Amino acid sequence: MIDGVKQQKWWGWGEEGKAYHHEDKPKFAPFVKKMVGVDITAPVAPVPPFSSLDVPASRLSDALRADLESVLGAGFVQTDDETRVVHGFGKGVRDLLRVRSGRLSRLPDVVVYPGTQQEVERLVDAVVAADGVLIPFGGGSNIVAALEAKPDEHRQVVSVNLGRMNKVLEIDEVSGLAHIEAGVFGPDMEDQLRARGWTMGHHPDSFVWSTLGGWIATRSSGMQSDKYGDIADICRGLTMVMPGRVLTLRPLPSTSSGPSVREMVLGSEGRLGIITSAWVNVHRIPEVRELQAYFFPTYEDGLKACQEIVESDAAVMMARVSDAIETQYIMANGKKSSRLGSLSSKAIQKIMLQKGWDLEKIAMSFVGFEGSPTHVRYEKGLVSKIVRRHGGMGVGKGPGSLYDQKKYDTPYIRDFMLDRGLVADVSETSTPWAYAEQIHTNTVAAFQRAMDEIGVRGVVFCHLSHSYHSGACQYFTFAIADSSPDAEKTYDHAKRVIQQSFMDNHGTVSHHHGVGEEHSPWMDQDISPAGVFIQQALFDGVDPGRNLNPGKIIHEGAPGISTNSTEA
Amino acid sequence: MIDGVKQQKWWGWGEEGKAYHHEDKPKFAPFVKKMVGVDITAPVAPVPPFSSLDVPASRLSDALRADLESVLGAGFVQTDDETRVVHGFGKGVRDLLRVRSGRLSRLPDVVVYPGTQQEVERLVDAVVAADGVLIPFGGGSNIVAALEAKPDEHRQVVSVNLGRMNKVLEIDEVSGLAHIEAGVFGPDMEDQLRARGWTMGHHPDSFVWSTLGGWIATRSSGMQSDKYGDIADICRGLTMVMPGRVLTLRPLPSTSSGPSVREMVLGSEGRLGIITSAWVNVHRIPEVRELQAYFFPTYEDGLKACQEIVESDAAVMMARVSDAIETQYIMANGKKSSRLGSLSSKAIQKIMLQKGWDLEKIAMSFVGFEGSPTHVRYEKGLVSKIVRRHGGMGVGKGPGSLYDQKKYDTPYIRDFMLDRGLVADVSETSTPWAYAEQIHTNTVAAFQRAMDEIGVRGVVFCHLSHSYHSGACQYFTFAIADSSPDAEKTYDHAKRVIQQSFMDNHGTVSHHHGVGEEHSPWMDQDISPAGVFIQQALFDGVDPGRNLNPGKIIHEGAPGISTNSTEA
Repeated sequence: MIDGVKQQKWWGWGEEGKAYHHEDKPKFAPFVKKMVGVDITAPVAPVPPFSSLDVPASRLSDALRADLESVLGAGFVQTDDETRVVHGFGKGVRDLLRVRSGRLSRLPDVVVYPGTQQEVERLVDAVVAADGVLIPFGGGSNIVAALEAKPDEHRQVVSVNLGRMNKVLEIDEVSGLAHIEAGVFGPDMEDQLRARGWTMGHHPDSFVWSTLGGWIATRSSGMQSDKYGDIADICRGLTMVMPGRVLTLRPLPSTSSGPSVREMVLGSEGRLGIITSAWVNVHRIPEVRELQAYFFPTYEDGLKACQEIVESDAAVMMARVSDAIETQYIMANGKKSSRLGSLSSKAIQKIMLQKGWDLEKIAMSFVGFEGSPTHVRYEKGLVSKIVRRHGGMGVGKGPGSLYDQKKYDTPYIRDFMLDRGLVADVSETSTPWAYAEQIHTNTVAAFQRAMDEIGVRGVVFCHLSHSYHSGACQYFTFAIADSSPDAEKTYDHAKRVIQQSFMDNHGTVSHHHGVGEEHSPWMDQDISPAGVFIQQALFDGVDPGRNLNPGKIIHEGAPGISTNSTEA
Repeated sequence: MIDGVKQQKWWGWGEEGKAYHHEDKPKFAPFVKKMVGVDITAPVAPVPPFSSLDVPASRLSDALRADLESVLGAGFVQTDDETRVVHGFGKGVRDLLRVRSGRLSRLPDVVVYPGTQQEVERLVDAVVAADGVLIPFGGGSNIVAALEAKPDEHRQVVSVNLGRMNKVLEIDEVSGLAHIEAGVFGPDMEDQLRARGWTMGHHPDSFVWSTLGGWIATRSSGMQSDKYGDIADICRGLTMVMPGRVLTLRPLPSTSSGPSVREMVLGSEGRLGIITSAWVNVHRIPEVRELQAYFFPTYEDGLKACQEIVESDAAVMMARVSDAIETQYIMANGKKSSRLGSLSSKAIQKIMLQKGWDLEKIAMSFVGFEGSPTHVRYEKGLVSKIVRRHGGMGVGKGPGSLYDQKKYDTPYIRDFMLDRGLVADVSETSTPWAYAEQIHTNTVAAFQRAMDEIGVRGVVFCHLSHSYHSGACQYFTFAIADSSPDAEKTYDHAKRVIQQSFMDNHGTVSHHHGVGEEHSPWMDQDISPAGVFIQQALFDGVDPGRNLNPGKIIHEGAPGISTNSTEA
């Protein structure tokens, strides 16, 4: 661990000492019990101590160590066990299952912390000269197995942590562009921008523990993307270090200079080089920012309303709606005293019942507005009409502010659940609007059928998270009540069923989590074999020695999960 | 020429019989005389007859002819001289200079007109099996030398015209997506869409003579891109035929499936395969569509106002402003009786003079609004305030409707000028807003200095054409009074100076015309040598036999113009 570079727990999300508590949310334990039969109030075995892990020794050669130390200084070349374990995994539940049970796979042999662009250039050349493997770590929040070496990797594996490269270097206040080092974490970056009156407006769920470089390398998208765009829109230029060369793409609003190299680096997951800085769109902090909450009789009503909202003359910052189960999950997570808690009050329920709504089917929605006070008022007027046309009702901005405070905390709930034998994770996809309802219905059904077949209790729920003219992203959360040693297999099965349902229902392998190894088996189905051929040609041509995070994006059979259970 | 596939003149833009006339615009001849000393009223030598050209014979082998005829039928395999000449060039002024003087370079040996996806697959395989070269023609409006074979190409050259593949195949009315064959021309496509109440909203200057496939292959942008997006935003999925395989990208609103293959095909200019169809965003025809005209005291005021407009709470469809010379050009092109003519009326001039404006510096602007009547009123209100804040004044919607009618006619004026010894063409770039003023000033100055140095009269003018959060495209038109046999050299010199000025002032080689051979010498400066290396790796990996439009995008020294005059 390096001074000034924050590091997550080895066994879970975020920092030591921060955890989810259910005691002040009286409806939560009954909700979980009802859904998956797990009693979260029962005593829990503690996570085993780090010392119980059997950590394989680093294979770093003296020669490469000397080279790296001469480039970076000895303090920034780390080979201790905990640092290597933390950098050997992302934070998917599959990662946590493995690391907690001591199945450590092929850990990096060394973790390096360069402080400058020039140091990255020199370290990349040193590692490639030694025929080593380079894996950029980002913030370590990856959930698609993009951070780990291939299990049979016999070469030296170097994990690159850019956490020291965390400065906003320059703000072009005329253009609304900022030049920022790639290793900066979300909150640190927004603090630096906000101190000067700017925001980037990119807020993925992983915001607290992910970096600018990681967002670009995975084609991230934030919860305000309806206004600010995906990272692919936000990132206008960048610098990437490649073996023996440096790619420099100056910031441009739009260009017609052949196949877009910028769009090749976006989503490259370390396979083309190490992104060291980027030019991104930044915006003046809006005068007004407001999240309004609405209820719809059903999720389907909410989906239709959201499509109409994003297609209307209003240009909202976000339009989100949760399905019935997720709505119940949100309500169950409300503190008794909170405004969210009050939503399930008898008074509101009475109105819903008067409207003839089935309380088991209601869907909660948040719509975000930004701009001048007049503009926000104008847009709220437009949205209200649409909500009413779809049978919905507004319930004010109370729940929205609560959502805003809690929006990054979901992974702590996931870890809390894992402690209690409930294996939970997320998977998201996008489709054209025509298939939005179908992919939801069919994916929920496929998951439930699969769990019924193997006799494991599970629950899946979903929200519409990001909208575009022609379609939207839906974000599924699923939890499986399996505390057995086979939990990873059960997870793999559930995940496989969900991913295959995405493909069978006009969806993509991922809207914004990336491919890594976990999603790579579906790439043929997603972009067609010719698309995989094109990506392979690109990787082979740029990295003939396979030194740059090999095995990601293109399926090579391991470790991950496969499209059919027999191959797994 | 094939029944039902329209074809341009061999010697100029558009169809035979359509031409520009100046007689009804009394101010135009004096304007040209003043600017470049050319008398456009003098008699003009006719374009030489086609029969005067010395057309090299087709080198198509009997074997390949037989293969192609068996795939397509004899009628869709054309080797006559005029068809080959028309398909051997784009429509840049450099193309016209060469073709009119009989310098025909390496023409295609055959032009093929497939009618189906399967025919394209079979013909691509037949040509590659014969080690021939495939060049997709699009609508033939290219101006960066992307349609011609390398001068020393010894293999058989096949130009592929998809003009028969011109149908809107399907409209997904729920998602706002249409599946359209790539060979359709702009007006035909919009007619098919509008008949069902939809529009794609993509209107490049070349609209009448360019195709959907061509727009995608060059990363085109239309004049309403502020609302509808560039073609890169509009195109959500596509089919591309490659040797031995077919790429199928299903329509997706957004995806995180590795480096974007969609964004590699966009701008690929035939180097990865032949685009046969695409899924594009389509929109309901808006209730109201209005172009409002404004005047600003200077171009710089107009630039600042446009930036503020696109960054405001209004979401306009277009914001365009012309510099002083282009404003004078537009006014000089007004018919005496028209509303544009009336703008130069004594009454309006009097108001401007009262405001203390210098009439030689005024800048004309068009801003486009779409939506419900209420919304258009709301946005016009926001824009009016911004215009006033920058010292501008509104002059109503008369000039806008005139602009709308005439917006595709500029190339006819260019041909009219060329008949009169005035070599004119266009070049566009984009920059961050911070450099918008600088690149305009410096490019105009560099061009004038270059013309002064060689003692040729020339004029250059410009408008802001496409805006984004962090920057904009500026579109330059330049004309050189050179009727000598050296006119092509003079053009090359002017073009070289303009392109280098783009690079020296934070611009890109092209915002939406593409690279071809003409812009390829600047690619190293634009995307850095590492960016060119990445593109080269992609092309080499996908097309190791160099059968797919070789020599484009990556600079190979010929024929085009080079970054320094000695190399040319």
